[in-house]
Amino acid sequence: MTFPWPEPGTKLSDVLTPMPIVDEARLEANIARAQGYMDKHGIGFRPHIKTHKIPSVARAQLAAGAIGITCQKLTEAEVFADAGFDDILITYNILGAARLARLRALNERVRLTVVADSAVTVDGLAAAFGEGRPLRVLVECDTGAKRCGVGTPEEAVALARRIAAAPGLRFEGLMTYPVPGGAAVVEAFLVRTMDLLAGVGLDCPVRSGGGSPDFWQAHAVPSVTEHRAGTYVYNDRAMLRAGTCGAEDLAMQVQVTVVSRPLPDRMVLDAGSKALTSDLSGFTDHGLIEGMPEARIVVLSEEHAVVDISACEWRPGVGEVLRVVPNHTCPVSNLFDRVVFHRDGVVTRVEPVAARGMVW
Amino acid sequence: MTFPWPEPGTKLSDVLTPMPIVDEARLEANIARAQGYMDKHGIGFRPHIKTHKIPSVARAQLAAGAIGITCQKLTEAEVFADAGFDDILITYNILGAARLARLRALNERVRLTVVADSAVTVDGLAAAFGEGRPLRVLVECDTGAKRCGVGTPEEAVALARRIAAAPGLRFEGLMTYPVPGGAAVVEAFLVRTMDLLAGVGLDCPVRSGGGSPDFWQAHAVPSVTEHRAGTYVYNDRAMLRAGTCGAEDLAMQVQVTVVSRPLPDRMVLDAGSKALTSDLSGFTDHGLIEGMPEARIVVLSEEHAVVDISACEWRPGVGEVLRVVPNHTCPVSNLFDRVVFHRDGVVTRVEPVAARGMVW
Repeated sequence: MTFPWPEPGTKLSDVLTPMPIVDEARLEANIARAQGYMDKHGIGFRPHIKTHKIPSVARAQLAAGAIGITCQKLTEAEVFADAGFDDILITYNILGAARLARLRALNERVRLTVVADSAVTVDGLAAAFGEGRPLRVLVECDTGAKRCGVGTPEEAVALARRIAAAPGLRFEGLMTYPVPGGAAVVEAFLVRTMDLLAGVGLDCPVRSGGGSPDFWQAHAVPSVTEHRAGTYVYNDRAMLRAGTCGAEDLAMQVQVTVVSRPLPDRMVLDAGSKALTSDLSGFTDHGLIEGMPEARIVVLSEEHAVVDISACEWRPGVGEVLRVVPNHTCPVSNLFDRVVFHRDGVVTRVEPVAARGMVW
Repeated sequence: MTFPWPEPGTKLSDVLTPMPIVDEARLEANIARAQGYMDKHGIGFRPHIKTHKIPSVARAQLAAGAIGITCQKLTEAEVFADAGFDDILITYNILGAARLARLRALNERVRLTVVADSAVTVDGLAAAFGEGRPLRVLVECDTGAKRCGVGTPEEAVALARRIAAAPGLRFEGLMTYPVPGGAAVVEAFLVRTMDLLAGVGLDCPVRSGGGSPDFWQAHAVPSVTEHRAGTYVYNDRAMLRAGTCGAEDLAMQVQVTVVSRPLPDRMVLDAGSKALTSDLSGFTDHGLIEGMPEARIVVLSEEHAVVDISACEWRPGVGEVLRVVPNHTCPVSNLFDRVVFHRDGVVTRVEPVAARGMVW
């Protein structure tokens, strides 16, 4: 079979559906605006590649002024190191002999930082990094997201001391994934922990915060030295709901085709959970259809989206091409080998999603 | 980077996580039992490749006695045609010049059947198949699933006549994707439509039913000549709930590692929506953890599963390897380039998921 990727110069309307499409102008504006904000507030910006997984997009983020990149998994970091990126933070507990051997190899070729939230993780890192270049380690702190992270400043300090005591590791600071609206809690946690660290003679040069929903409030945590965010680069329905972006900042849509109109109030699209993901992100339906604000994507199966159009004035016929703003763009990127970029309705490039599927 | 796929002979406990693993013995038993049932009832079995997307698994299904395969999308069918499969049903409305040209090429090399539920789809097919080998077309009927399909026997007949009138198309019969428990409705729809078709002199050799949840009730629709099902081959939590399989028939799990234990009642796994999918399939949590029936995977982010273990007696530590039965196996297959097969705890083979991402 031949793959269905369009050549540059193809009209967007001739691109096979379902296909994620990225508007170059909006992408550029999102990158510039975000970096401008971080520059203004003197916060280092370390974009998370999870949203795009594409080296050329990360290069544009660095060119705008980012200090490095964030990856969630080791194999993502390997892909980006292969693509020439040399300052990478992996915000993950890395465990197990096979992964640690790969981590050591990666640390020889890039400026690498990882996080840890338990003695088990730290001890594994310490055993693997007995010799060679030391590995930078941040202590992950739970400031309300209820995922990973130590729960108290005291635990953070205990773990920092464990890291500092390992000859192959370097305690570099603190990392947290805050909840929206959690600025005051994060600041209090960081200040208290830095005080305690100073008391035991430990320096804490990096305080890494993050998130797209609260992007424009990063400066509300004065102790933060760097900010990690991914979704801002494309934006999505969840960012729109959060008020972080406007409709004109939505850089990624999934272009789809109406494949069935079995009833006057039902429309079926050729994009199911394999194109839009089942990620609800707190919504009760599966994305926004541009130009059809009253349409509701009520059910997704793997290759079909069933849309309730009973409240819609315009009811497109079979064959009509539409665009869906996904609830959450990041997992959409993970479903496609390539993403189509466009400007003024014309394809500019088709980028391999180099780190797609890199979950290890 | 080097890819993390294990060699045959590797112990399963040494395989990197998160990784979908398939038990060869259970897979074989699922294939044999399903085919045995269809044989006993004289129903042609046409497995849906959406669950595994792997040619060697489909070959085992054919070797057991399947009459052909089902694909949901044209590009899936192209992958399987390339792998040597020569009897393919695509249960999708195929639209647009680019796709129709590909469909015509595919029809020259395999015994191909597609479905249609609208005059627009039929007219597109008719225009594309003016010459060369005729294309077989089934009329898709909605018997309660509320997705695609004509809603009444009268509409089905009108569409059948439109197909039959096109020189390049051959009306081959009816197709439906029934809802569980819908046998009587399906049978009534088929019988009435066949009566009407006979009245206008149209033969209806194929009546294609389907689904895994009601698999063992396929014989309750006497008019059906063939059955399509995918999930039965691996099974999953939804099939367990439906009573279609037992725990001993669950052939696919996702092997995962505990990466964080921030609190006594919270465990975090290295498998998020990029490994388990966000597909709830009607559940309120994200899969079953084997050996931990009281554990609840309450939140998935892309690379983390947060598990409430407050009700669990056994509370695994960081680094422990566990197995998750996904809510729905089919979209899990779509997230991984390869799947690891095993027997008695040892890797037997690592199969490329050849049709992964083929959504066009």
